[in-house]
Amino acid sequence: MGVVDRRLWSEHRQRMFRRMLEDIEVGYLDPDIYSILQLLFNRQESFPVSSCSGRITLVDAPMPWHRKGSTVIFKKHSAVERSEVEPLLSQPPLSRFWLVVTGPILHVSALTLREASTLLKIARKAGLKHSGVLSISRRGIYLELRTGVRLTILLKSESYTCEHLAEVVRVANEALAEGKSRLKRLYEELSRSST
Amino acid sequence: MGVVDRRLWSEHRQRMFRRMLEDIEVGYLDPDIYSILQLLFNRQESFPVSSCSGRITLVDAPMPWHRKGSTVIFKKHSAVERSEVEPLLSQPPLSRFWLVVTGPILHVSALTLREASTLLKIARKAGLKHSGVLSISRRGIYLELRTGVRLTILLKSESYTCEHLAEVVRVANEALAEGKSRLKRLYEELSRSST
Repeated sequence: MGVVDRRLWSEHRQRMFRRMLEDIEVGYLDPDIYSILQLLFNRQESFPVSSCSGRITLVDAPMPWHRKGSTVIFKKHSAVERSEVEPLLSQPPLSRFWLVVTGPILHVSALTLREASTLLKIARKAGLKHSGVLSISRRGIYLELRTGVRLTILLKSESYTCEHLAEVVRVANEALAEGKSRLKRLYEELSRSST
Repeated sequence: MGVVDRRLWSEHRQRMFRRMLEDIEVGYLDPDIYSILQLLFNRQESFPVSSCSGRITLVDAPMPWHRKGSTVIFKKHSAVERSEVEPLLSQPPLSRFWLVVTGPILHVSALTLREASTLLKIARKAGLKHSGVLSISRRGIYLELRTGVRLTILLKSESYTCEHLAEVVRVANEALAEGKSRLKRLYEELSRSST
């Protein structure tokens, strides 16, 4: 389509590939997502820019989507146990404690609109239904692939403390598992489309 | 760019414009969003397809993003009072009761990539930071404009009942108001860009 500058795009692709190799080496890379990054790099007209396989966080913030005045108290990319969260709730929050579960998110740069469209279709088929193109520039067509999996549960505020933490943790782990299973479907759909 | 078929797109635009007029006539249209729809129809290369100004719902579902096995018990596009929600919680849920707050969402069809990019920039500037292009086809470039404003608060499950409804309702109304204020900013940004 002539929107994206192929040279800029390819240079960025090389930088991201090297960064992935470094991340693997230092053990920083989330293993749940590694095989998907490989499949994306294996495509001729896409590469992954950043990714998260899904996680559970405990956040101190007025609202869970705020950045300002917000602190991440705890973060884990696999199931949590009540005993990991409970001691953190004994202190008073600066604003409010939220238990936030997010499904997988991938940011991908595509070279062409046709490739961007193909990826969006694959992502939707795998249950990443809230996927879309975030921006279009000379540097690339920038996609976000994500699910609607998201929980934001109020655990503590000035006049409130959650008294059913066991149940909340159970529901949070169930949500996290649902996100991970969509990531697996994404892997399968990407495999199928690359053969 | 030649991606979109101008005739198909214009026909769809006319249908959506007539539908808006009908919705106004029967009083169906959410007044908080009407002025924004007008600004969008006023652009040469965009039109709104659907919209919601933000709302609070009470949902009976295993997870708040599920469609199957999910029932909307209560829905309101303005602040709720505890007394509206409390009686609904006396019955047992089929799966779980969730209080869900969503910020404004608009779906817009654009004729060109340049217009789509412009709208995404306007939306982000107004705080609708999760906006993106959902699909690109001959019928149009289909955008979703939305915020990260979203709360999903567990109110009742098999082994849990929220005992702090007053506080939860207070937080929900605060979140709804934050969504509405971004809608106001979107109106201002759209006004500015159309002069």
